[in-house]
Amino acid sequence: MRLTTMSDYAMRLLMYVGQHPERLCTISEVARAYDISEAHLMKITHQLGLAGWLETVRGKGGGMRLAAAPEDINLGAVVRSIEPDFFLVDCLASGTVCLLTGNCQLTGIVSGALQSFMQHFDRYTLADLLAPNTAGAARLGPSTQPVIFRKRPILAAN
Amino acid sequence: MRLTTMSDYAMRLLMYVGQHPERLCTISEVARAYDISEAHLMKITHQLGLAGWLETVRGKGGGMRLAAAPEDINLGAVVRSIEPDFFLVDCLASGTVCLLTGNCQLTGIVSGALQSFMQHFDRYTLADLLAPNTAGAARLGPSTQPVIFRKRPILAAN
Repeated sequence: MRLTTMSDYAMRLLMYVGQHPERLCTISEVARAYDISEAHLMKITHQLGLAGWLETVRGKGGGMRLAAAPEDINLGAVVRSIEPDFFLVDCLASGTVCLLTGNCQLTGIVSGALQSFMQHFDRYTLADLLAPNTAGAARLGPSTQPVIFRKRPILAAN
Repeated sequence: MRLTTMSDYAMRLLMYVGQHPERLCTISEVARAYDISEAHLMKITHQLGLAGWLETVRGKGGGMRLAAAPEDINLGAVVRSIEPDFFLVDCLASGTVCLLTGNCQLTGIVSGALQSFMQHFDRYTLADLLAPNTAGAARLGPSTQPVIFRKRPILAAN
């Protein structure tokens, strides 16, 4: 399961810019900092600008800065503005033809899982990403435990 | 954001087999039913067999059946046994080098979102997928609302 690289880089780019509120940041310095191609970052910067998360200043000495305070940049909203779609399974895409459509619970269950996923992001803003890790670890609590990586099949308890 | 096609098809294959508990099902009939290639389904059947969700009977008149009752086949466990990884962002993969590692909240927040996602699947079994849609719709409740498809950026309320 993956988010697109776009969402991953978008959040890291916002973190970098948010860590330098006193000045404009350039695409080339972010590219060097994360070892990401400038072309890729240029697309992301453009999209984050269109979505209203970044302001860019053109010309010599130009660059980018946040278009809002970190506390006002909600991470769920950022992911929604960057991910091209959330069709986790084929049957979530419109126009899908499946002989089970209308008599199948899969769509509802997958949509519910995705809603839980996005609701978790909705609880955080860019300010949380910029907070020192030690303080944040306590706040994030048990959700930081990587229990999702258990691969062995288990039978349902009920 | 996507689950792999493997997980999508694995759940649909289990649904099909679960809908015919009185007999063995063949890969070719499932392929026809969903318009999926047999080669693809063969890989998935093999993996579901290894993971302990399907039993296969070889030879003439052979086929596959569930290896457990639908109530005992947990959907979260199925997804974990099929998805190759859950590295939603680069920094969840082991061996990742990032200048922010150790001083960044992104990993914890993304892990938490993924945990919420998987916990939702953990609440359901194959029996829920086989239930008639009308009864299930009430049980699934508000989680079936596709609110995650809102694309317009929103500012945090706090």
